[in-house]
Amino acid sequence: MKLWEKGIPTDKQIEQFTVGNDRDLDLVLAKYDALGSIAHAKMLGQIGLLTAEETDSLVEALNEIIADIAKGNFIIEDSFEDVHSKIEYLLTVKLGDAGKKIHTARSRNDQVLVDVHLYLKDEVKALKEQVKTLFDLLMESAEKHQNALLPGYTHLQIAMPSSFGMWFSAYAESLIDDITMLNAAGKIVDQNPLGSAAGYGSSFPINRTFTTQELGFETLKFNAVAAQMSRGKAEKTVAFAMSSVAATLSKFAMDVCLYMSQNFDFIGLPSHLTTGSSIMPHKKNPDVFELIRGKCNKIQALPYEITLITNNLPSGYHRDLQLLKEGLFPAIQNLKACLDIAIFSIKDITVKEHILEDKKYDYLFTVDTLNEMVVAGMPFRDAYKAVAEQLEAGTYSSPKATKHTHEGSINNLCLDAIKLKMLNSY
Amino acid sequence: MKLWEKGIPTDKQIEQFTVGNDRDLDLVLAKYDALGSIAHAKMLGQIGLLTAEETDSLVEALNEIIADIAKGNFIIEDSFEDVHSKIEYLLTVKLGDAGKKIHTARSRNDQVLVDVHLYLKDEVKALKEQVKTLFDLLMESAEKHQNALLPGYTHLQIAMPSSFGMWFSAYAESLIDDITMLNAAGKIVDQNPLGSAAGYGSSFPINRTFTTQELGFETLKFNAVAAQMSRGKAEKTVAFAMSSVAATLSKFAMDVCLYMSQNFDFIGLPSHLTTGSSIMPHKKNPDVFELIRGKCNKIQALPYEITLITNNLPSGYHRDLQLLKEGLFPAIQNLKACLDIAIFSIKDITVKEHILEDKKYDYLFTVDTLNEMVVAGMPFRDAYKAVAEQLEAGTYSSPKATKHTHEGSINNLCLDAIKLKMLNSY
Amino acid sequence: MKLWEKGIPTDKQIEQFTVGNDRDLDLVLAKYDALGSIAHAKMLGQIGLLTAEETDSLVEALNEIIADIAKGNFIIEDSFEDVHSKIEYLLTVKLGDAGKKIHTARSRNDQVLVDVHLYLKDEVKALKEQVKTLFDLLMESAEKHQNALLPGYTHLQIAMPSSFGMWFSAYAESLIDDITMLNAAGKIVDQNPLGSAAGYGSSFPINRTFTTQELGFETLKFNAVAAQMSRGKAEKTVAFAMSSVAATLSKFAMDVCLYMSQNFDFIGLPSHLTTGSSIMPHKKNPDVFELIRGKCNKIQALPYEITLITNNLPSGYHRDLQLLKEGLFPAIQNLKACLDIAIFSIKDITVKEHILEDKKYDYLFTVDTLNEMVVAGMPFRDAYKAVAEQLEAGTYSSPKATKHTHEGSINNLCLDAIKLKMLNSY
Amino acid sequence: MKLWEKGIPTDKQIEQFTVGNDRDLDLVLAKYDALGSIAHAKMLGQIGLLTAEETDSLVEALNEIIADIAKGNFIIEDSFEDVHSKIEYLLTVKLGDAGKKIHTARSRNDQVLVDVHLYLKDEVKALKEQVKTLFDLLMESAEKHQNALLPGYTHLQIAMPSSFGMWFSAYAESLIDDITMLNAAGKIVDQNPLGSAAGYGSSFPINRTFTTQELGFETLKFNAVAAQMSRGKAEKTVAFAMSSVAATLSKFAMDVCLYMSQNFDFIGLPSHLTTGSSIMPHKKNPDVFELIRGKCNKIQALPYEITLITNNLPSGYHRDLQLLKEGLFPAIQNLKACLDIAIFSIKDITVKEHILEDKKYDYLFTVDTLNEMVVAGMPFRDAYKAVAEQLEAGTYSSPKATKHTHEGSINNLCLDAIKLKMLNSY
Repeated sequence: MKLWEKGIPTDKQIEQFTVGNDRDLDLVLAKYDALGSIAHAKMLGQIGLLTAEETDSLVEALNEIIADIAKGNFIIEDSFEDVHSKIEYLLTVKLGDAGKKIHTARSRNDQVLVDVHLYLKDEVKALKEQVKTLFDLLMESAEKHQNALLPGYTHLQIAMPSSFGMWFSAYAESLIDDITMLNAAGKIVDQNPLGSAAGYGSSFPINRTFTTQELGFETLKFNAVAAQMSRGKAEKTVAFAMSSVAATLSKFAMDVCLYMSQNFDFIGLPSHLTTGSSIMPHKKNPDVFELIRGKCNKIQALPYEITLITNNLPSGYHRDLQLLKEGLFPAIQNLKACLDIAIFSIKDITVKEHILEDKKYDYLFTVDTLNEMVVAGMPFRDAYKAVAEQLEAGTYSSPKATKHTHEGSINNLCLDAIKLKMLNSY
Repeated sequence: MKLWEKGIPTDKQIEQFTVGNDRDLDLVLAKYDALGSIAHAKMLGQIGLLTAEETDSLVEALNEIIADIAKGNFIIEDSFEDVHSKIEYLLTVKLGDAGKKIHTARSRNDQVLVDVHLYLKDEVKALKEQVKTLFDLLMESAEKHQNALLPGYTHLQIAMPSSFGMWFSAYAESLIDDITMLNAAGKIVDQNPLGSAAGYGSSFPINRTFTTQELGFETLKFNAVAAQMSRGKAEKTVAFAMSSVAATLSKFAMDVCLYMSQNFDFIGLPSHLTTGSSIMPHKKNPDVFELIRGKCNKIQALPYEITLITNNLPSGYHRDLQLLKEGLFPAIQNLKACLDIAIFSIKDITVKEHILEDKKYDYLFTVDTLNEMVVAGMPFRDAYKAVAEQLEAGTYSSPKATKHTHEGSINNLCLDAIKLKMLNSY
Repeated sequence: MKLWEKGIPTDKQIEQFTVGNDRDLDLVLAKYDALGSIAHAKMLGQIGLLTAEETDSLVEALNEIIADIAKGNFIIEDSFEDVHSKIEYLLTVKLGDAGKKIHTARSRNDQVLVDVHLYLKDEVKALKEQVKTLFDLLMESAEKHQNALLPGYTHLQIAMPSSFGMWFSAYAESLIDDITMLNAAGKIVDQNPLGSAAGYGSSFPINRTFTTQELGFETLKFNAVAAQMSRGKAEKTVAFAMSSVAATLSKFAMDVCLYMSQNFDFIGLPSHLTTGSSIMPHKKNPDVFELIRGKCNKIQALPYEITLITNNLPSGYHRDLQLLKEGLFPAIQNLKACLDIAIFSIKDITVKEHILEDKKYDYLFTVDTLNEMVVAGMPFRDAYKAVAEQLEAGTYSSPKATKHTHEGSINNLCLDAIKLKMLNSY
Repeated sequence: MKLWEKGIPTDKQIEQFTVGNDRDLDLVLAKYDALGSIAHAKMLGQIGLLTAEETDSLVEALNEIIADIAKGNFIIEDSFEDVHSKIEYLLTVKLGDAGKKIHTARSRNDQVLVDVHLYLKDEVKALKEQVKTLFDLLMESAEKHQNALLPGYTHLQIAMPSSFGMWFSAYAESLIDDITMLNAAGKIVDQNPLGSAAGYGSSFPINRTFTTQELGFETLKFNAVAAQMSRGKAEKTVAFAMSSVAATLSKFAMDVCLYMSQNFDFIGLPSHLTTGSSIMPHKKNPDVFELIRGKCNKIQALPYEITLITNNLPSGYHRDLQLLKEGLFPAIQNLKACLDIAIFSIKDITVKEHILEDKKYDYLFTVDTLNEMVVAGMPFRDAYKAVAEQLEAGTYSSPKATKHTHEGSINNLCLDAIKLKMLNSY
């Protein structure tokens, strides 16, 4: 039952091409479509386009559909083009004319918009919760391992002393910025587009403030054209925020893979987080973190894909926009899976305790030595030359411990201040 | 005078390759480098690593440098690698040992980080102001032209009535979302990285809270490793926000170019905003808006460039990060130029008044007609069929006016509500 | 049956995360995996690691598997990690020890590499055939409609006379460049990687020249490390070529959508290639071409996704590379579908015959008029001014026909020369 | 002197915005613009639109301009919009009416197209030569160091024996694929677009076959609309090929940076290829290779920038296309610089000889051991278990040498076959 079908047989191949895997993707939206319809029905009742009985019967039927969706009993058969026509069909079969009236004063465009906004609002919230959980675990690890020193690298060259406390909490503090991006994305999707109809509003006397409150949106996207233009823009904004999270996670995973290499050997992973090889019996491969890295890198291509689909399209709806779902929806699930796995794995990372005993790391402390000379009164450039000479003469001796005092240093991690910043940013 | 030079002659070609156009790009940072140095000098005084006289003389000399920068008298000669070595050289020449001491307890890495954060903070603020100005002008145009009707398109097909009021204020309201993104970017760069040294903190007893207050940052990036990781991440975040603005502007420019085409002929531009052709004497080309579109599309490639440079690099500084400046800095100037030109041009767009009198636009009102029948009691699907039959029979007559009432519709633009939303989001 | 499992229970969630939808994607590779195994088995026989009977029984069993795949009877159950382990399992169940021996002197890495190369070789060939078919149809349309004039635009402004002959054959000739790109991709994937084992070759005395000939590859990727590095690089190269085709197709679709707009009204599409609207009964939307445009734009994001996954990974296999399949395989199918639909639709595009009779297109011929004056002896800049004056005075009269003579002009399309170029490039 | 100026004063700001840095970029094109003008003048002479004297004087004057360009004496002052108007001005000042006539039967669009095609043809040729030189040096290093063993990694885990011979020649063989891409790009830009005028051909009886031969193009882009559409497409194709080269170079640089790390310590670089640190006196940073990596990663963003600028623009010239130069031209110079520096540096890489003596690399040989057992008759899976047991029991003893025989293995690098392949592909 295609709503736009006017009796002309449509070639099977064309249908496959135009509908694509929309039915599968729409399952994600089913709950939100029903919720949007409930708000719309109540509003139509409020403005007198539906009777109280019609409204009540529609709301009841839609709540039953929501219950079916929750139970996994909702499917979109091949005879339906999308979730909207399936739900309208169910309402019409059950309620007759009242069912037909649900589509008064809205268009499918409208419905997709409100569905996607509601969906993204929920997913941004879920992502924030996962990021917060990961933050907490990283902070715990930072606290636990704050005394385990680690070489710090610049240019991949051994540079200065660092610590597992620094390393874990650095990623935690970086996640706060990702929360700020998620907040921006969350604010942008928290604007009700319902009532924009085909993108230019409606001549029906609808009440958009009513549906905004009913659906729990913070505000409206007032202008109907602006509401339509949020298609693509809302998705891209969420994709930007997802990219931020993904970049942090990917970098962390890169560190884990490097530190797992026998050439670094800074950390260990339990067997269930590594794999062997079909022909190399001694391998312990960090596949899980390689896949976090790879998946998170792939997610970072998403904003570009969205941009390519939407760029240079003049204002107004274009069918191209339908394709936004098929990149975004799986990417959200993938990012959530990466966060889940990271959360699951973080506590299993074991930390090597005596890394800096290896002679090659002695150089790490040259700067601290040099600084001590400066604090004792020697000009920096002179101290620099003195240490360089000690190194050349082989007379340099490493303290193998740090006594840093400033905010955010090895011996003063400011974990509480970072936790407070997360709290203020969340 | 390369700081890292230890007496080994460096091949000319290599120097060209490694320094690149850094000296030019660094001119942008000169003011911020001096400001960062002032804060650093005061802090060194506060913790006793500089005497009061040394601090005062450094602050005075740095303020003179800032004055020179403002006058355009500051240059970075080829004998200096970057802005940091030039300023340190000036201080050393002027103040001797006190000048040498300014580099105590920091690294160039540190300086670039704080310079870039201060610079981006200023630029984000400037971009916000421009976006706000453009918003105001679009809102004015919307108000002024709220009664001029325009065809609304879906699928580039004539669809429903719209208006210049809708069109102008749609872009205005979209800009509010871009402000939200700029706010997120602004918040992320408003964290003091100074004191992270080479990325692992310092053994000097520095006071980072002091420099944070001195430089007017809202908070610190506490963890020194996190501060280092903000290199690339801060830039990308700003690039995301810039992409948002650019996408809105590009879409508006696409509409302008289309509406200027003789096949639409909805708007006009004065001669100074159009060009002719070397062989087609009748042309009035909207080059200015084509270049806004093109430049804004180019800007949207920036986050991907940054991602490609930074992705899969393990934590810790890498020289690759130096390359971030050469994409970002001109992009910021380009976006500001696009906004300036848009602000300059918007009031010069003339609006055609009687567009809908063309017969081909009669179809626009079918939905309004259909809706009236529904309000009068006919079920939607029946009304739909009735109008379709009128159209087929050629008996459909267009009302050529709209009586929309809902929030954000042609006859109820909610301009005040949109202005309030901007105020709340700014 | 995971090959690397050594008795440690793997968490369900981890398995889901690491295996992902690999089993589905691997179905595409099943035939190629069996073909690769046949060549490998024959080679093992040739070098004496398998007996003649073992070789024969393996080849026979693998041919049966290929027959099953062709019949759609091959599935990869959840108990198998991938296509490789499933096929090895089938061989082991059927042939016992001989089945186990098939994995001698190769690794899964090796298998994926050769499978993907064989698959991409076939798909590049198929894409070339489709592009050639589309080329032929565009050339037919160009020939058929060579006398139907069309306005040519620059800056979306009416500029100079063009024709449907020019328009159709322009896209045809552009496709020749895409063939050149597909040829490059085809050449790059036509190098046998089999025998690279885990990426560093094997200590078995394998004969890679033998498998190269057996599998019909033009040459070997000799160096085993280079063979391993072709993972990602081969995919990206194919993605570049696909992007070329997609860009041509997308631009053509953009033109179609624009020309379908009532504001241009240059072409028509039959009902089965358009859709209506749920609330606008008069619409004829070019959804099919919008989706060609959108899908082809999405495809152009593919090289970027591949680059993000592979970039900055040091040499040697990383698990991230597994993720290449999930972007590339559907993109190939999508591009093939777009080409199919374009091929299917092109002949259904109807061309409006008397477009240039509309007065607004009179300006088109000013340059031709001007040129005639120049050919008659007037300097260009003077003729330019004269025509400009006629236009201003309203005395300009349009010839409404062209008499162009040069190669590739409206009246000399050079279709045969273009066909010959395609032949030489194919 | 703007050609399209018709007496209306153009705002300074607008001019700055529209002209941008075109004058600088156009300097690169000056030689090609003069060459294109020579061919055009000769053709105008041949078809009788110029007298023999006019033609001769134009050709002579243009050759003088070319000589000036070569001497660095050609500049484009602010009073000229671009290279085309400057050269036309010079001709007009010198030759009067004959100078004015050079612009007969062409447009600036035309000129840019042919200039860019000629320029890209030259640059693709230059890039091929550099890639070939780098190939030769890598092959030399491979031959020289073929006996120096190296650990091979998978998942960044120690995996199997490799060698510097394998490593160097792997990158060499990969470059052959990049040559194939450069060949495709070279073929695509080797088609004469001159004569397409504003994108729809000309009513003058021009002879495009003549200019094609005169300019040394292999063929014409026949269709004038196709010639116009090659703007952006030609650039993108070259950018794809450049991306291929850049990806190979970037990966090599990543390996160099990793192998330089004290944690690997596989190679060394002389002082002039490393830098020290302002606060860490012991550092030897591989900045040169980090910048090769970073610059090559940045170059890989170029195709996406071009795609964003050109995507979804309908056919016909748009001013946006002017912006293609400002990304592409510097990227070409950057890639050439990266290749130069790589060529310069490759021979300075010193190779550590006894890497595999470190005990942690013993595991590398397990597969070779296992394979020997298989060759001796044991089934693979059984041998696998046996070696695994030796490892667990600590009884495994490493041979520390390889005896590989197959094509492309450590002991049979097939350098001659790879050289032959390069020869056949070049």
